Amino acid sequence: MKLFPRKISSFLVCPLALLAIITANAQDPLPSWKDGAAKSSITSFVKKITKDGSTDFVPISERIAVFDNDGCLWSENPLPFQVIFAADEIKRLLPENPEWKENASVQALLKGDTAALLGDHHKGLLEIIALTHAGITTDEFDTRVKNWLTTAKHPKFGRAYSKCIYQPMLEVLSYLRANDFQTWIVSGGGQDFMRVFAEEAYGIPPEQVIGSHGVAKFELKDGKPTLTKTLDTVFIDDKEGKPVGINQFIGRRPIAAFGNSDGDKAMLEYTTIANPKPSFGLIVHHTDGEREYAYDAKPKSSGKLVKALEDAPKNGWTVVDMKEDWINVFPSAK
Amino acid sequence: MKLFPRKISSFLVCPLALLAIITANAQDPLPSWKDGAAKSSITSFVKKITKDGSTDFVPISERIAVFDNDGCLWSENPLPFQVIFAADEIKRLLPENPEWKENASVQALLKGDTAALLGDHHKGLLEIIALTHAGITTDEFDTRVKNWLTTAKHPKFGRAYSKCIYQPMLEVLSYLRANDFQTWIVSGGGQDFMRVFAEEAYGIPPEQVIGSHGVAKFELKDGKPTLTKTLDTVFIDDKEGKPVGINQFIGRRPIAAFGNSDGDKAMLEYTTIANPKPSFGLIVHHTDGEREYAYDAKPKSSGKLVKALEDAPKNGWTVVDMKEDWINVFPSAK
Repeated sequence: MKLFPRKISSFLVCPLALLAIITANAQDPLPSWKDGAAKSSITSFVKKITKDGSTDFVPISERIAVFDNDGCLWSENPLPFQVIFAADEIKRLLPENPEWKENASVQALLKGDTAALLGDHHKGLLEIIALTHAGITTDEFDTRVKNWLTTAKHPKFGRAYSKCIYQPMLEVLSYLRANDFQTWIVSGGGQDFMRVFAEEAYGIPPEQVIGSHGVAKFELKDGKPTLTKTLDTVFIDDKEGKPVGINQFIGRRPIAAFGNSDGDKAMLEYTTIANPKPSFGLIVHHTDGEREYAYDAKPKSSGKLVKALEDAPKNGWTVVDMKEDWINVFPSAK
Repeated sequence: MKLFPRKISSFLVCPLALLAIITANAQDPLPSWKDGAAKSSITSFVKKITKDGSTDFVPISERIAVFDNDGCLWSENPLPFQVIFAADEIKRLLPENPEWKENASVQALLKGDTAALLGDHHKGLLEIIALTHAGITTDEFDTRVKNWLTTAKHPKFGRAYSKCIYQPMLEVLSYLRANDFQTWIVSGGGQDFMRVFAEEAYGIPPEQVIGSHGVAKFELKDGKPTLTKTLDTVFIDDKEGKPVGINQFIGRRPIAAFGNSDGDKAMLEYTTIANPKPSFGLIVHHTDGEREYAYDAKPKSSGKLVKALEDAPKNGWTVVDMKEDWINVFPSAK
C-alpha cells in the first residue's frame, strides 16, 4: 500500500511548486514582460535611483514619471477612443439636434469619411469635438463619458474601451508607485475625458492627469456654482506642448518618460537630455498586428513613430517591441 | 538636611510640568490660535469629516484644501511681495538695460508712483512684470527669485519675505496634512514665483501650487531642452479664475477653502455652496494694524474684502479676526 496515493502526493508537492511560482512572481514586479533588454532597462533604472547612498539616488519628491496615454497606456486604433466617443455622441444626440444633419462635418462623420474629417488641419474633427465637448457643464460631460464607457465595446477586442489598457504598462505604473514615484499622464487626449476613467483604469488620480483642454467658465446659476466646458484658449498637450504642460502642472522636470509616437519626442527629450538627475525614456513600438495593431510607421490617424524611433539609440531610450517583449497585452478581465 | 536640595527637586518637578505642556500642545494642533469660534470651527470640521463610519466622513482622496497666498498665507503689504520683487529686479537690471530709462512705466516705478503703475487696468505694472518675468528661461527665473528671497527684507517686519508667513496658517496646513488632506495654493500670484519658495515655506510642493501664468516655450537650444517664460495666453488665477484653475489643475471640487479677499469669493462659493460633501470656508480678516496691517476694507493695492465678508454669514464661512483670534502672527524664526 502506498503511503500517499497519487492525488495526495500531488497535493503535497504542488504547494511547494506553487510557492516557488508565487515567490518568483513576488520578486518580479513586471510578470507580463519577457526577460530581456527592455524589461531589465526599467528595473535597472528603478534599482539605481532608489539605492540609498548611491550617487544615482533620487529623493522621493523628485521621482516624477510621465506617461502618454493613447498608444502608450491604452490602444489608439482603429481611431483614438475619444474620437469614437465623439462620433457615438453625435449619433446619440442627433435626434435632439436635427440641425446637425445640415453640418458638413457631421455628414462626413455619419458616412465614415475619415479623410474629410482629418483634412484642413483636422477642421472637421474639431467641429465634432466642439459639438460634443463644449457648452455643457463639467458634471454633465463626466456623466456622458461614464455612460459611454459602460456601454461601448471595442470592435476588435470586444471589451470596454477602458479595458483596452496594456497590462505590461499597468505593471510599470504599479512598480514605479511602489518605489515612491508619482505617475502622471501627459497626453494629447482631452484632460476632462481621461480624468473620468484614469483613477479606476490606471490608479492615476485626476490631479495627475494633464491633457488638452479649454478654459472652463465659472458662474453661479440659480445660486449654484457651475463650470461650463468651453473651447476658449485651448491648450494642445502634444509635441512641444508636452514639456510646456509638464512645467505648467508639475513644475519639476520628470526623471522618467514613457511614450509611443513622435508626439512624445519633446517630452522624452525634456526628461532625458542634459537632465542633471539620472533619467529614463521608453517608447512602446506597435509591432503586434495580431494581438493589437502594427501601425506606427504609417498610421491611419494618430500615433506616427518615425523621428523618435530614429533618435532612440543616440538618446538611450528603450524601445519596446510589443510583439517580442510583452507576454500579455491586455488584462485578463474584460 | 533636605533630602532634595532645591535645584534637584525643581529638576524632578519640572519634567512633569514640561510633560504637561508638551501633552497639551500635542493635543492642540493649533497653538497659535486663541480658543474661540474660529479655532473650533476648523477642528470641528476636521474631526467631523475624518470620523470613520460617520455620514460626514470624506475619503482621503477627496480631502482637498485650497489656500489663497497673498494675505492668506503671507502678508501682502505694503505691496504684494511679487511686485516688490519686480521693482527690485528692475533696479538691479537697469545698468544692463539703459533703454529702460526711457520707459514711462519704469520711470513711474523709480519715482514710486504707484498710482501711475496701477492706472489703466494695471497697464504699467503689467509692463514691469513683462520686463522681469518673460524672455528668460524658467531656470534663470528660479535663480533670480531665490537670490532675491535671500537678500531682500520686509520694510516693516525686518525679516525675509519668505518669513512673513502666518504661523497660525502654517499650523492649519500641518493639521490638515496630518489628517490626510492635500493642501493646494490657488493664488492670483505668479505660479513660477510661488513655486520657488512654497515647499520650504509652507511644505507645499510645486505640483500643488496653482497661480497666474503664461504658457512657456519649449525648444532644444544647442541640443539642450530649454523652457522660456512668455506672457502668451496668460491665465489670471483670480476671482472666477480660481474655480476654473482648480478644475483645470485638480479636477476635483475642494472641501475646504481659505482666503482673505473678494478675489477668493468665487473659490469659497465653489467649495462650499451646494457641495454634496461636507465643506468649510474661512476668511482671514486683516484687523491687526499693530502686529500686521489693518487694510482690507480700503486697501492701497490688493486685498479688498467687502463682498465676501458680507456673504460670510449666509454661507457659513468662518471669519478670522486676526487681532483677536491669533496669538502669534509670524513664526519666531526670522
